[in-house]
Amino acid sequence: MTIPYIGAQEYFPGIGRIPFEGRDSDNPLAFKVYDANKKIGDKTMAEHLRFAVCYWHSFCNAGHDPFGPGTRNYPWDAAGVPLARAEAKLDAAFEFFTKLGVPYYCFHDIDMAPDADDIGEYENNLKHLVALAKQRQQATGVKLLWGTANLFSHPRYMNGASTNPDFAVVARAAVQVKAALDATVELGGENYVFWGGREGYACLHNTDMKRELEHFARFLTMARDYGRSIGFNGVFLIEPKPMEPMKHQYDFDSATVAGFLQKHGLDRDFKLNIEANHATLSGHTFEHDLQVASDHGLLGSIDANRGNAQNGWDTDQFPTDLYDTVGAMLVVLRQGGLAPGGLNFDAKVRRESTDAQDLFMAHIGGMDAFARGLEVAHALLNASPWEQWRAQRYASFDSGAGQDFANGQLGLADLHALAVKSGEPVKLSGHQEQYENLLNQYLLRR
Amino acid sequence: MTIPYIGAQEYFPGIGRIPFEGRDSDNPLAFKVYDANKKIGDKTMAEHLRFAVCYWHSFCNAGHDPFGPGTRNYPWDAAGVPLARAEAKLDAAFEFFTKLGVPYYCFHDIDMAPDADDIGEYENNLKHLVALAKQRQQATGVKLLWGTANLFSHPRYMNGASTNPDFAVVARAAVQVKAALDATVELGGENYVFWGGREGYACLHNTDMKRELEHFARFLTMARDYGRSIGFNGVFLIEPKPMEPMKHQYDFDSATVAGFLQKHGLDRDFKLNIEANHATLSGHTFEHDLQVASDHGLLGSIDANRGNAQNGWDTDQFPTDLYDTVGAMLVVLRQGGLAPGGLNFDAKVRRESTDAQDLFMAHIGGMDAFARGLEVAHALLNASPWEQWRAQRYASFDSGAGQDFANGQLGLADLHALAVKSGEPVKLSGHQEQYENLLNQYLLRR
Amino acid sequence: MTIPYIGAQEYFPGIGRIPFEGRDSDNPLAFKVYDANKKIGDKTMAEHLRFAVCYWHSFCNAGHDPFGPGTRNYPWDAAGVPLARAEAKLDAAFEFFTKLGVPYYCFHDIDMAPDADDIGEYENNLKHLVALAKQRQQATGVKLLWGTANLFSHPRYMNGASTNPDFAVVARAAVQVKAALDATVELGGENYVFWGGREGYACLHNTDMKRELEHFARFLTMARDYGRSIGFNGVFLIEPKPMEPMKHQYDFDSATVAGFLQKHGLDRDFKLNIEANHATLSGHTFEHDLQVASDHGLLGSIDANRGNAQNGWDTDQFPTDLYDTVGAMLVVLRQGGLAPGGLNFDAKVRRESTDAQDLFMAHIGGMDAFARGLEVAHALLNASPWEQWRAQRYASFDSGAGQDFANGQLGLADLHALAVKSGEPVKLSGHQEQYENLLNQYLLRR
Amino acid sequence: MTIPYIGAQEYFPGIGRIPFEGRDSDNPLAFKVYDANKKIGDKTMAEHLRFAVCYWHSFCNAGHDPFGPGTRNYPWDAAGVPLARAEAKLDAAFEFFTKLGVPYYCFHDIDMAPDADDIGEYENNLKHLVALAKQRQQATGVKLLWGTANLFSHPRYMNGASTNPDFAVVARAAVQVKAALDATVELGGENYVFWGGREGYACLHNTDMKRELEHFARFLTMARDYGRSIGFNGVFLIEPKPMEPMKHQYDFDSATVAGFLQKHGLDRDFKLNIEANHATLSGHTFEHDLQVASDHGLLGSIDANRGNAQNGWDTDQFPTDLYDTVGAMLVVLRQGGLAPGGLNFDAKVRRESTDAQDLFMAHIGGMDAFARGLEVAHALLNASPWEQWRAQRYASFDSGAGQDFANGQLGLADLHALAVKSGEPVKLSGHQEQYENLLNQYLLRR
Repeated sequence: MTIPYIGAQEYFPGIGRIPFEGRDSDNPLAFKVYDANKKIGDKTMAEHLRFAVCYWHSFCNAGHDPFGPGTRNYPWDAAGVPLARAEAKLDAAFEFFTKLGVPYYCFHDIDMAPDADDIGEYENNLKHLVALAKQRQQATGVKLLWGTANLFSHPRYMNGASTNPDFAVVARAAVQVKAALDATVELGGENYVFWGGREGYACLHNTDMKRELEHFARFLTMARDYGRSIGFNGVFLIEPKPMEPMKHQYDFDSATVAGFLQKHGLDRDFKLNIEANHATLSGHTFEHDLQVASDHGLLGSIDANRGNAQNGWDTDQFPTDLYDTVGAMLVVLRQGGLAPGGLNFDAKVRRESTDAQDLFMAHIGGMDAFARGLEVAHALLNASPWEQWRAQRYASFDSGAGQDFANGQLGLADLHALAVKSGEPVKLSGHQEQYENLLNQYLLRR
Repeated sequence: MTIPYIGAQEYFPGIGRIPFEGRDSDNPLAFKVYDANKKIGDKTMAEHLRFAVCYWHSFCNAGHDPFGPGTRNYPWDAAGVPLARAEAKLDAAFEFFTKLGVPYYCFHDIDMAPDADDIGEYENNLKHLVALAKQRQQATGVKLLWGTANLFSHPRYMNGASTNPDFAVVARAAVQVKAALDATVELGGENYVFWGGREGYACLHNTDMKRELEHFARFLTMARDYGRSIGFNGVFLIEPKPMEPMKHQYDFDSATVAGFLQKHGLDRDFKLNIEANHATLSGHTFEHDLQVASDHGLLGSIDANRGNAQNGWDTDQFPTDLYDTVGAMLVVLRQGGLAPGGLNFDAKVRRESTDAQDLFMAHIGGMDAFARGLEVAHALLNASPWEQWRAQRYASFDSGAGQDFANGQLGLADLHALAVKSGEPVKLSGHQEQYENLLNQYLLRR
Repeated sequence: MTIPYIGAQEYFPGIGRIPFEGRDSDNPLAFKVYDANKKIGDKTMAEHLRFAVCYWHSFCNAGHDPFGPGTRNYPWDAAGVPLARAEAKLDAAFEFFTKLGVPYYCFHDIDMAPDADDIGEYENNLKHLVALAKQRQQATGVKLLWGTANLFSHPRYMNGASTNPDFAVVARAAVQVKAALDATVELGGENYVFWGGREGYACLHNTDMKRELEHFARFLTMARDYGRSIGFNGVFLIEPKPMEPMKHQYDFDSATVAGFLQKHGLDRDFKLNIEANHATLSGHTFEHDLQVASDHGLLGSIDANRGNAQNGWDTDQFPTDLYDTVGAMLVVLRQGGLAPGGLNFDAKVRRESTDAQDLFMAHIGGMDAFARGLEVAHALLNASPWEQWRAQRYASFDSGAGQDFANGQLGLADLHALAVKSGEPVKLSGHQEQYENLLNQYLLRR
Repeated sequence: MTIPYIGAQEYFPGIGRIPFEGRDSDNPLAFKVYDANKKIGDKTMAEHLRFAVCYWHSFCNAGHDPFGPGTRNYPWDAAGVPLARAEAKLDAAFEFFTKLGVPYYCFHDIDMAPDADDIGEYENNLKHLVALAKQRQQATGVKLLWGTANLFSHPRYMNGASTNPDFAVVARAAVQVKAALDATVELGGENYVFWGGREGYACLHNTDMKRELEHFARFLTMARDYGRSIGFNGVFLIEPKPMEPMKHQYDFDSATVAGFLQKHGLDRDFKLNIEANHATLSGHTFEHDLQVASDHGLLGSIDANRGNAQNGWDTDQFPTDLYDTVGAMLVVLRQGGLAPGGLNFDAKVRRESTDAQDLFMAHIGGMDAFARGLEVAHALLNASPWEQWRAQRYASFDSGAGQDFANGQLGLADLHALAVKSGEPVKLSGHQEQYENLLNQYLLRR
């Protein structure tokens, strides 16, 4: 993977393989922190972070927003029929992956191949591009982190895909999921994602949530069964988002989806793909929703981006806030890593960022931010008193009556008797400020 | 209950039993809509609505906020030792209940009786007041909707009660829950509530959520077992709230708590008590969180109040928005009623509302708003095309392949085959505006 | 205006002139409250409300959102070159205006005429369509409430129009404003609007707000001068919005824009066009931002829609909440009306509302909601104690020392002396609940 | 100031003068970054940052919140009559100031001296404590950054202080402002602050905003005149906050207050005191509201704290986010410093932080975070291409037609002509990601 892949045309001329140059470099097209082979604990940075580039934002999205069309004129969209444009885009994508030096990518069916209302044409388009992608993967060593089907853009899905009140739409959604699962298996994808952008409601008045959620569970079960039947051994992932485009979406947050998976017996095959900006839209910090998922044994993968607290929609900015990346890596390191999941940059350069190098700089910034988050989280967990402080707070449950309580061996009257005997509990400071200072201290250390 | 209860002193002189006078009355101290014995369908308004007054906001809360102390000087707080004040408050409460004409009330242990660090003193105080309350109930016919323990005010609970990192505090919390359960049984309470105001975290850094939630489940299990052992046959209720006072609270919303109860096998004994303002703080409409609870078979009771979209804290205003009350009553009527739960006014008059009559007007406004919500919801469900419209949307799942899908008899390949055969689905409008217009139309009709 | 305008083709077949049928009608295509000629006080409903239909949402917007394209196939977009489609759309619009029975419409330059990068082509397109629109206005009596230029969709405006860091873009924006002002004068428009969708920043790092705001003031001054020079005697309007599409927009809310206009000496020619959903995005109620504008003497016109408290973007729903419409009409009636402004439905049917009748029902619902708001507000102001209660609260400033204070005739030491003499002020309840109950009471009365 | 002040009793035994030990120190009671005498550019860190400790949170606030009382038992509150406790608190405060090593403090009248309804008693209490504080200042060299009056806690102010609908309350508020101004002058305070916690409304229904705002302006004018008459030469400061405790507060944000001051001719004597958490509650970033104030020439002082994006109330956490402190210091450095204002820690340790050392650690963390923000901001402005990039973006206005435009020498038709001549503007990327990467790069450099 050291030699960038260049197809029939070079789409990012003048930009070569992005080097690691260290913190004192002033080269905007170099990594300052991310050094793929640097060991952090017993794994390299690359092994810890498992970065993926996303196909949709980076090669399909020209920068449209609700108030205007795209601003970027991609050379791979320049000419020719849809299939030719899709082939050019594929070459551009692999050129970018290899120049940036990421091991993975992710895609929706209709990012890669032209969509078509005719089912046969849609399937053929996808098969054609998947065959080419497979060749590119073999040529470059770049792998597929996960595939998925876009069940939210086409107008037929306006009232939902698998939760649509009309069964005909549910059946049509199955066509895409089947094709996307086939493609994922063909490309050796390690995971398969469901993001339910239209699985929710615009209006509660006309909606039977209970019925829609039962259909959703049925649909996921069928997809799971089909996937397993064709040899998909990876992880199915649900990506929570509380709203947007719908007023309310069913996969609201980690806790909601964990309850849903458990209720429908899907928690052995499905895990969660947590996106930072989706977590914040649901009223949580990124770290919180990661931790909830991890506590349920369900943290499977991460969509690495960020929103901002002033805008109430999914801004999908590249992750640059080191507090976010430290928090995320604390959760990931504590659970022993993300594999077979990874860190997918579900992020887009700003509509106003119209130069080719902006796309590189955005990814470099995100990768450096997560690399630094990894370093700091590793140091906090291994070189600072952080974990010992936390363990000490709960020590009363490690033995004696506290342990008996935790093990379910005491009743309410037993606790009453203990309280009468013990007298008023001693006040124990939570020392929040001490933790916050320690984190900043490690952030500033080399 | 027609003659107001007056204790040793009359606390609301000049205000008698609040009459129903109908919509054209200009008397601010009369009901305009709530006519207790009016039949709506097969039940009276009183039977549908099961109103309860809450002890804490109405008789304990003098109007403090984070920036200033209380503004109301309650005559029952005027003089004497704590027990004497508590007795006076009890008389004031029953005078208010009977003048207003509500069938129920709700209380925390230390609303009714003076708190004490000494366990024996605390228990004796509570027993003394409970004995008096039982007499008042018998004298007036007013009943207890639910009891609860305040596990959030005392500084010992600052880091949590049942989820406190220190087992000594967990044990101390058991003292209060035991006493409050005893009191609830003694007073014939129909439900028992847990609101976990401190069950959450101020800071994720120092918190082990997984461990705390396991302790929470253990504690609830013990409380359930104790309650059943002393003859409590009512419903245990969890009241979700996403945050405040803590940064994050574990009982975030209906979906979160439903998943938690199910995971820990508590969903047969526990249901949810949904508060409007808590629902909105968690990013939902009131109606949404009610519907989610109801869809899980877990909607047990309602804390009737409202917040506002501009203030990000629990303002606990009296419910006056008719859209909220119509939405709530749609859910309640569809599930066949709330009993043994009810509509508890967990609402407080504004800090600036310092006259005795403000408390009456606040409750009158809330009761009229819910009575009107009941009328409109009943008419929408029974006299309008609303339910037929909704049913028609999902008709494709009532027979044929759609029904087979819903019953789990089809696989992904079957759906694919159906889609290929059927061609592009027909576009079906969701008609949101039509539903909204119909609701307004019924709101304006007599 | 009693005979609907039908052009070469009828675009809404099967739907005639929308009649008033009163509250007991079940006809979804009839007004239940809005009776154009009904007198409320000394003006008809039509004179009070001055409804306008907007061109962009109703005839250009096919329902796209950030996650998918439009869902509606408008017959006027069916075929032909851009100019032919624009002519068809104009006919459809006037058919709709006259079938609905609204006196006004509003438009952006490129809603009505095809855009073009070539300035001459753009100007010719607009002139051509304006000439046709003038004929339609004359034929139907429908008038132009306001015109405006779209300075936010074209990629050239991605970094701002009049506040763009590049002067070349500022100059290009002038082309459109000049053309739109010319068009507005030609069509007898009563107002001209500036909505600064891109006048703000995506990122504060690269932005000099001070410089951009000075350019903004210069640009508005030039537009004002040009408008006056070509005979525009109407009102210039700024439409505040706090964010979206940009992270931050300069016209944040009423107070911000009032300060800006005053600072730059523009407050004699410019007023505000307040949009409900923009007000709520800025952290205010709709009524609040209207009142702030009105208190500055700057409330010029209203964009009547609504958002919802759960979604942090501009949902532009049709106004149906009667609390919003009562609140708005209280402000409007107190200031003696909106003319020459009006109530423009800057609202769009939901993406899922794909039938032609949905567009009619949406407008009918909005017009009925404002008509009812007008009735209730009028009754509150004229038949209830509402205004007397308010006046009484401030009576201490109507005479004596309070009046002297208000007139600036006292100093701090004078107030100190008065306080010493008067002793502790008497506590005066704000009686919020009484106002809220009164409003509901009037909402429910005929 | 090198020897800590210890009064009759030592209140923080075991903690001495907090030393600077550098980034590699593991001592939680040492500064890692803040080195008072270190030169950054031409000023020391102490001169740049002008830190102040606030009296109310640090010595009066025992940790109460809306759901529970305080958790900390301060030794200075231990015993004796109110005046004795106030004297003890004063000693504790000066011990803390000098052990921490801050040059300034800030206070409200009734933080320092016991409140009393009797005006004479209140004034005497304050005079007594001010005399003692003056002695402590002289003994230690600690100075008063600003004084203020608490016009929000006492129930008499529930409906507002200077904006109260009852003139008697306005007069009573004047008593406190006069006394607090007298105290500020006596103590050599460099500024005087107005925070209008109750200057707003709980309910728009009963409120005449226009009248209240006029009274507000009158009151401020009187206070200004009185202050100047007694020799106060410092800056009057308004501290914006959008809401809480009231539903809406008049001093919403920087832009709102700037407009108000200008409208009432107060912008020569008054500036703004911007609080981070207030800025975020108003929908802005901290840096944004600082920049708006600075752009108006009105940035006078800073209340340094932070909120969090998940909680919609004023959490008043200590500032530890380096992005916040870099952003703030960019604004401060660009305007040439804050003097005579400073950085006041209007922040409180968490309710769960109950140890004496928590208060020290909180301040140390905040001071280090601002010291680091200063270093990074200084480097960005002086050693990086940041400012050059920004200047280059606006270069088209530095000469030629762009400059003429900015100077007001062109009209709309001139711009039209220029646009016709120039053709379509070139697309210029905003390069947001490049700025974000540069900031992170400097954050990580030594």
